[in-house]
Amino acid sequence: MTVRRLRLIGIGPGGPDDLTVTAVRALNSVDVFLVADKEAEAGRAGTGGLVAVRQEICRRHSTGDYRVIAVPDPPRDRTPEVYGAEVRDWHAARAEAYEIALLEQVLDGETVGLLVWGDPSLYDSTIRVVERIRMRGRLDIDYDVIPGVSSVQMLAARHRIVLNVIGGPITVTTGRRLLEEVAGGAENIVVMLDGQLACSKLSGVWDIWWGAQLGTTDEELVAGRLPDVLPQIEKARARAKVARGWVMDTYLLRRASAGPS
Amino acid sequence: MTVRRLRLIGIGPGGPDDLTVTAVRALNSVDVFLVADKEAEAGRAGTGGLVAVRQEICRRHSTGDYRVIAVPDPPRDRTPEVYGAEVRDWHAARAEAYEIALLEQVLDGETVGLLVWGDPSLYDSTIRVVERIRMRGRLDIDYDVIPGVSSVQMLAARHRIVLNVIGGPITVTTGRRLLEEVAGGAENIVVMLDGQLACSKLSGVWDIWWGAQLGTTDEELVAGRLPDVLPQIEKARARAKVARGWVMDTYLLRRASAGPS
Repeated sequence: MTVRRLRLIGIGPGGPDDLTVTAVRALNSVDVFLVADKEAEAGRAGTGGLVAVRQEICRRHSTGDYRVIAVPDPPRDRTPEVYGAEVRDWHAARAEAYEIALLEQVLDGETVGLLVWGDPSLYDSTIRVVERIRMRGRLDIDYDVIPGVSSVQMLAARHRIVLNVIGGPITVTTGRRLLEEVAGGAENIVVMLDGQLACSKLSGVWDIWWGAQLGTTDEELVAGRLPDVLPQIEKARARAKVARGWVMDTYLLRRASAGPS
Repeated sequence: MTVRRLRLIGIGPGGPDDLTVTAVRALNSVDVFLVADKEAEAGRAGTGGLVAVRQEICRRHSTGDYRVIAVPDPPRDRTPEVYGAEVRDWHAARAEAYEIALLEQVLDGETVGLLVWGDPSLYDSTIRVVERIRMRGRLDIDYDVIPGVSSVQMLAARHRIVLNVIGGPITVTTGRRLLEEVAGGAENIVVMLDGQLACSKLSGVWDIWWGAQLGTTDEELVAGRLPDVLPQIEKARARAKVARGWVMDTYLLRRASAGPS
């Protein structure tokens, strides 16, 4: 069977130097980068900036020659009726697109790099897509994963906070599930993938530490008592969106009674 | 008031190259490293290897001159009756020891570096201790935080897993609180600071992805169905402890019914 060697490289939350020395070394072992070209996705124009930042990271840290293959990203229903099923369909479609690129545009013996924003272990599909390609059985995929700093860690660093209260737990979840987690008793919550600021629907006394475009020159940070700072967050979100055409934001919520930060 | 400029630098989980390029740059801005000398702590001989690894990171990545000040770590009750209170007492004692070093062994205008294993935002005391020094009011502390890859992320990378099931939450907690989190309904749990393998007390069907000394040459990895792999984990833990005199381990637990990895 045709063998392809893949490296999944976490490149950090957005700054061109926020990847590890190990990740830089991995970049330099790569012959071909596969990049999901999200501009091919209808109605999401402007996300091409992501491709540009990835290319800047390669330019800055890769000393050898490399090729970049932009793989058109399959269309995705952003408001599906059944969330998990829709995500799995999309993984399957992306696996198929990557498989074609790996078969047709990569040579035997070449090392293929996949750059992952933040960390591949946190709400990222790359590992799942690669596992799908393996399961399809047309390619023998040999791969490793290089971890990266996530946007959550950059958020905490910029606000100079610890994510947990002393000895206490952290719940990491999505905007979609926030209210459910709070109903279940969570009091110290990291929220990711929240395009709607689900925290605006919370009752009770909460503090928030929010950030967008973390690690980039357009970084936005707001902290304070909910809902006092919500208008400020909404403004900063809008500003970030105007600057880049997209917003990547994350936040920590802590019930005021949960303990000192 | 005397001003001290501090940089809290996340150096990753254990490998000498698992820190970011930004962290390397921060290392090179440092004149004086403060290192907690845990060997001074009674009954914890062998943890001095931690000091040695930190020094190796400085040697490898710092191109200029620097001094290292080993600050004796205050004694700590590892089996306190009241956990939070004991931790806070220990933070206060460490803040006092650091304050003395900052006043007596650091010159005006020097930049002071504090190297933090993993990431300063996750179950680490350094930010809290620095905030304590500020609150004491004898020094004007100006500091920033550089995030690092945590052992949790290295665990996930080595096992090539995503920490969440699709769209699902992650609970990050300590061994001490594990059973409580499970009773509260958590089904996908990262456990840190667990010297006793609290997971051995779980009932129900769980999968575990475990790792120790992650990122180092003595790395140990075990994955499988609990309790089938527990003896293997106990052996690997013992082996790691013999090699270095200490064990740093972490694991992901997932209820088998929670969804595919």
